[in-house]
Amino acid sequence: MSNLNAVLNQIDENLDASVDRLFDFLRIQSISTDPAYQSQCQQAADWLTAELTNIGFDAQREDTPGHPMVIGKGGQGDKHYLFYGHYDVQPVDPIELWTSDPFDPQKENTEGGVVIRARGAADDKGQLMTFVEACRAFKQVNGELPAKLTLFFEGEEESGSPSLVPYMESNRDRLKADLAMVCDTGMWDATTPSISTMLRGMVGAEITITGPDRDLHSGMYGGPAMNPIRVLTRILSELHDDENRITLPGFYEGVDPLPADIKKQWDSLNHDDAAFLQEVGLSVPAGEKEASVLEQIWARPSLDINGINGGYTGEGFKTVLPSQAMAKISFRLVGRQDPIAIEEELKRFIESRLPEDCSASFVFKNGSAATVMPVDAPEFGKAQQALTDEWPNPAVYAGCGGSIPVVGHIKDILDMDSLLIGFGLDDDAIHSPNEKYNLSSFHKGIRSWARVLDALS
Amino acid sequence: MSNLNAVLNQIDENLDASVDRLFDFLRIQSISTDPAYQSQCQQAADWLTAELTNIGFDAQREDTPGHPMVIGKGGQGDKHYLFYGHYDVQPVDPIELWTSDPFDPQKENTEGGVVIRARGAADDKGQLMTFVEACRAFKQVNGELPAKLTLFFEGEEESGSPSLVPYMESNRDRLKADLAMVCDTGMWDATTPSISTMLRGMVGAEITITGPDRDLHSGMYGGPAMNPIRVLTRILSELHDDENRITLPGFYEGVDPLPADIKKQWDSLNHDDAAFLQEVGLSVPAGEKEASVLEQIWARPSLDINGINGGYTGEGFKTVLPSQAMAKISFRLVGRQDPIAIEEELKRFIESRLPEDCSASFVFKNGSAATVMPVDAPEFGKAQQALTDEWPNPAVYAGCGGSIPVVGHIKDILDMDSLLIGFGLDDDAIHSPNEKYNLSSFHKGIRSWARVLDALS
Repeated sequence: MSNLNAVLNQIDENLDASVDRLFDFLRIQSISTDPAYQSQCQQAADWLTAELTNIGFDAQREDTPGHPMVIGKGGQGDKHYLFYGHYDVQPVDPIELWTSDPFDPQKENTEGGVVIRARGAADDKGQLMTFVEACRAFKQVNGELPAKLTLFFEGEEESGSPSLVPYMESNRDRLKADLAMVCDTGMWDATTPSISTMLRGMVGAEITITGPDRDLHSGMYGGPAMNPIRVLTRILSELHDDENRITLPGFYEGVDPLPADIKKQWDSLNHDDAAFLQEVGLSVPAGEKEASVLEQIWARPSLDINGINGGYTGEGFKTVLPSQAMAKISFRLVGRQDPIAIEEELKRFIESRLPEDCSASFVFKNGSAATVMPVDAPEFGKAQQALTDEWPNPAVYAGCGGSIPVVGHIKDILDMDSLLIGFGLDDDAIHSPNEKYNLSSFHKGIRSWARVLDALS
Repeated sequence: MSNLNAVLNQIDENLDASVDRLFDFLRIQSISTDPAYQSQCQQAADWLTAELTNIGFDAQREDTPGHPMVIGKGGQGDKHYLFYGHYDVQPVDPIELWTSDPFDPQKENTEGGVVIRARGAADDKGQLMTFVEACRAFKQVNGELPAKLTLFFEGEEESGSPSLVPYMESNRDRLKADLAMVCDTGMWDATTPSISTMLRGMVGAEITITGPDRDLHSGMYGGPAMNPIRVLTRILSELHDDENRITLPGFYEGVDPLPADIKKQWDSLNHDDAAFLQEVGLSVPAGEKEASVLEQIWARPSLDINGINGGYTGEGFKTVLPSQAMAKISFRLVGRQDPIAIEEELKRFIESRLPEDCSASFVFKNGSAATVMPVDAPEFGKAQQALTDEWPNPAVYAGCGGSIPVVGHIKDILDMDSLLIGFGLDDDAIHSPNEKYNLSSFHKGIRSWARVLDALS
């Protein structure tokens, strides 16, 4: 080769068609966590299968006990790359806060440039399509794909990926490659690309406390009858101390201090803590007091109550003393923290604090450990240079506060590292109303993958 | 007179027709707290108005900014009695726990005898109809009502009675009588009637805590961003101490120790604490440790969290860090506790515990002070004897853990005491799924009112 410039031109000239295809994809309401959207998830899988086939992949939808996988194989070369993405999206509630229909994608002019507004625009449909469209451009210009590629898409990333591990274990040989590529992360800022080399892991738990065996009238029982919401709020309140540290025994085992060189690199990024918090209406960092905001997100564990429910929550008042109360909580993990040990400790923590008349039940989401990538491997240097060639500022190695459990599974089941390159921005509002993806992220994202694939082929 | 026996015979012979009328009334879905049921509340008011007119009252529906009042006047005599009841009912959720349609009343054979199963069977449609049917029997037998009566029904008792005070203040002259009668309380047990002479008051509050100005992704913000559910659970957990006492400053001002003679009377009732708790799946009294269960319900204040909600509570997991969290709480008041002072102290308690980035908003339900009746007045003795004549065991003076705010308004606005006689039982499941009213409560309740009206006319 390299006729990279012809491929980049092809991408530029066909941008409108690429956007049209993304819009078609975004119109499919593939909310994986809610069983009501099952057929839409299947429709998204079929749509992707057809697209890959059009481009020249040998592609198929493969059904699972949950939502289908999509797998596409094509291209030739010494090195074999596995690309992973997910076609499912988050729920849209609270729907009343959206300024437009979440499943009717719109281009909007904003202060930050043109954006694509829709659920899934950034997480992860827009991102995965940057890779697919880069492949398409190579095929159009050269008549062939840029490397030996396996594309692998799931539809359960936003609902705990129950089918992922069994599928990967049953299809080790078809998925095994030299390196994985994943597009589900963000840029440092709108002009600075990044490769994520540290990812937090996760433990998720739904806790239900049961007290009386039925809902009671608080006039008749208020006082002598134990209220499960009171029990739940008390126990949850004991999970943090006054220094915002998590009190679960043994929780910090495997949490290492940040190495001095990494800390120095991160400090040099001059993260604007005030602007980061102000963007969402806050002003005071709420995490562990001794850690910087960037460390709190990238290198320190955290605990959030993601949802809580019990008793009467409709309009008006109802003086009920409820039978049950429920909370969904999640821990973000770093370093060598063990998800299984934390699940067990959480169970003990709660059960040991129950009053005699209450019981607790638990549903755990598939946990995942944190991941740290080998940044000294040559592919990481080449990819960093390719991104630096595309964007105004050089590419940085960064952490990532969110979990991408598949990266752990790729390591554990397929024994592969992952090159995590994504073009999301902090204000994309993923998992929130009015999610968007910058048009520049989409366009230069496609060009970035073309450069990375060219450099690694 | 007295041809009381003829009236009692008339009641016995017409019981089936009385039950049929009650069933018609129970079929009307008059849930006052939910605006979706507004027309059904009006329908219940119209139904009552028609019934009173049939019996010979001069009755009308009177509209308010909320649900209508019904007022009926009739009869003659030296003494004038005001009877109060409410035609609205509680919501039915969780609907899946009902064994039959809550608005399709059924007679069921149970271990405790025949019951009428429906939402509102006990609270308060069945109860108020005991008085209406007693009036009807007098009219049928004598051609006239037993006394000078004003019947007064509201449709907002289960939703904070927003129209009640303005209406009572505007209609003082029409409502003023010598004594009020209210049928919204219970018996001591299935064979022992009671007159409630102490009622707990109430303060209700809906508290909403706001943190970030939008829902966030806990992967991106978990750690540095303050989580309002965490703030809410921490503050709520601080409202009780380890002795189950309420920690709000000044809360116990106006709570007097129980007088020795009352304590002795209550102790002689031999309340079965274990059975009372076991009935609802509990075993350990959860209130203030130094008080008996009966004292905890009748003579000690309490605090319950009636509902809590925030973040994602649907199926599956969503790693959201929500913008808001809400709780509905209520205090039960006794003695001379001041609802307004408690509302203000609660506001201060919560606001003083908010971290810098959180705000709180409050909606208070109309508060009410506790009530203590003048048991030495002659009407109380006559009523006690009338009830003793009807039932196997003598009638007792009792406390009542629930609030009947109207009793406070009758005192404050109309300067009248209330004779609180009701036929509910502890296992009626009012405010819960599968509410019921014993057929014997309904039948002997009608007979009881006939005896009381005869004694007081």
